[in-house]
Amino acid sequence: MTKEVTATRFEAKRLESFAAAAFVALGIPESDAAICAARMIEADLLGVDTHGIFRLPHYAQRIRANGINLHPNVHTVRENAVTALVDGDNGMGHVVMTYATHLAIKKAEESGLAWVGTFNGNHAGAGATYSSMPLAKEMVGMYMTVANANHMAPWGGVELLLGTNPISIAIPAGEEPPVVLDIATTMTSYGKVKLAAQKGESIPVGWMVDRKGQPLTDPKRSSEGFLLPIGGYKGYGLNVVIGMLAGVLNGAAFGRNVVDFNKDVATRNNSGHMIMAMRVDNFQPVETFKKEMDHAIREIRESERMENVDRIWLPGEMEHERIRERKEKGIPLATVVVANLNHLAAELNLQDRLE
Amino acid sequence: MTKEVTATRFEAKRLESFAAAAFVALGIPESDAAICAARMIEADLLGVDTHGIFRLPHYAQRIRANGINLHPNVHTVRENAVTALVDGDNGMGHVVMTYATHLAIKKAEESGLAWVGTFNGNHAGAGATYSSMPLAKEMVGMYMTVANANHMAPWGGVELLLGTNPISIAIPAGEEPPVVLDIATTMTSYGKVKLAAQKGESIPVGWMVDRKGQPLTDPKRSSEGFLLPIGGYKGYGLNVVIGMLAGVLNGAAFGRNVVDFNKDVATRNNSGHMIMAMRVDNFQPVETFKKEMDHAIREIRESERMENVDRIWLPGEMEHERIRERKEKGIPLATVVVANLNHLAAELNLQDRLE
Repeated sequence: MTKEVTATRFEAKRLESFAAAAFVALGIPESDAAICAARMIEADLLGVDTHGIFRLPHYAQRIRANGINLHPNVHTVRENAVTALVDGDNGMGHVVMTYATHLAIKKAEESGLAWVGTFNGNHAGAGATYSSMPLAKEMVGMYMTVANANHMAPWGGVELLLGTNPISIAIPAGEEPPVVLDIATTMTSYGKVKLAAQKGESIPVGWMVDRKGQPLTDPKRSSEGFLLPIGGYKGYGLNVVIGMLAGVLNGAAFGRNVVDFNKDVATRNNSGHMIMAMRVDNFQPVETFKKEMDHAIREIRESERMENVDRIWLPGEMEHERIRERKEKGIPLATVVVANLNHLAAELNLQDRLE
Repeated sequence: MTKEVTATRFEAKRLESFAAAAFVALGIPESDAAICAARMIEADLLGVDTHGIFRLPHYAQRIRANGINLHPNVHTVRENAVTALVDGDNGMGHVVMTYATHLAIKKAEESGLAWVGTFNGNHAGAGATYSSMPLAKEMVGMYMTVANANHMAPWGGVELLLGTNPISIAIPAGEEPPVVLDIATTMTSYGKVKLAAQKGESIPVGWMVDRKGQPLTDPKRSSEGFLLPIGGYKGYGLNVVIGMLAGVLNGAAFGRNVVDFNKDVATRNNSGHMIMAMRVDNFQPVETFKKEMDHAIREIRESERMENVDRIWLPGEMEHERIRERKEKGIPLATVVVANLNHLAAELNLQDRLE
């Protein structure tokens, strides 16, 4: 959940054009800048604020350090009717993954199912923005990626070889919002740990352990330990498998080859992603399936609640409500984020300021 | 890990022919009986003892209650080059899923990728036995199913609408064993809770909660609570999505429609499963990919260990070692399991006894 304290709200379109202008000023061609901005503001609308416009200064830093190819030749290097391997040519992750997702959807429209893998990419923002794209075509979407920094050790190990490796799966529904899962396979993100450190708060037992496997609850000591996977060895296994399907299979970075994109803004990331799209009418007529989904969703939502629980949420439902709210009321940005963005705008000699 | 106390070891082939003979005596045609027995003994070799020959008396009970169609017309009702929907006609789950997996592999051989869903099936044993089948063809396998009893509530709810809904993913390697994930999306299985109750042991905090969300550690009170998902709301979301992809998408049981196969042995289960197969050479030459997998596996296994940890295991590696050990030394069966199996053999007038 997002804490929205001392925040100003901005219209989504307003932020999107701000971000696009910044990318153009940084040297990215207009059409690619528009793609990056669109994906980032979609993340903000979803409430995945850490993957939205908040991250623009960080992307700018990497671009200025020549860590990104501004004119990438994003292209398919292997392909058949239902799969493709895409070389991102070190372009912005959003550009590479938008290309890959459109390709997967096109192939699935023709053949029913498609799986597209990418290498030589970069951080692409929120997984749900890609897994959700096939929804409009009555398709299931699935997205996995190798995270851009290692904050987890193998189960029983102490070396940081694994990232938060997330998975996102989107399934269409009828009158109900689509079901959209978007989870890291770690108990929490490193961003939340850093936030707790900034606030001087402790973190719950179960988020991190130290090198002896003891609970680490002081986030200021985070460098002495590592994130824990969901469900112990189970989440570790899921994390590894996601890394292999999104990374190793595509010839992308995994393990020691992963570049910590926060600490090193210049080295090529070779970030790997995958996107799958599958038409639901392979299995059921679309309307039948949607009715069944609505039924399943309502059965869960309307089932008996625990005391003091106001509502049972389906995966992605909270984000669905947030999109509606933020489209209406605007996207809240913390004062410090606005200041950082305006600072960047000044550096780039943009007229535009967020006020 | 399996506790192997007061157990006798039996050669895998010996148990397989015992199980096959029992199925034939129960009225299943020889070829289908052989498939069921093969899948069950594969589970025993893996060490998934709860899904092996241990379960034969339970299957027998369902067959005798006319809960299973002994002569099913397992057939494809919808199909294109890369997907299929299979009607299991209420046959044994192993028969239905073996058919579906062979079909997925055949389609993936021709097209590179395939996803086959099934409905009208039954409990099919261990997920890894299906996800691993594509490995021999240098393919990734993915399996999901809706579990055959609901022991979990939605996040924030108290009604048992969800099962342990497992996912299994298998990825080929070169000299190293393949990476094979096979996990329930609950912290533990209901079987382990029942076992603890039998032994008079308590269960760890985190496995179950009561209807007020308080930890439930006395397994004798298990009916007053429910299993917890891995990673809290994350595992709940993953569980729901697996249920929708393996169940709702295929027109199979989900939510209140799931029949508790332990309590009700007669009602049609309409169990749903999915299997995906994908050739790795869509993305990399097979040998290149295998080398990269070996590298990734070794990097993890050989990384620095926590104090007192003897070895870092990859997903499925422990099972791989167990297969080798059990093929050599035999499959250990607890005395009570042997007694139950011999009791069944006597009932079926089989000559064969396990001694």
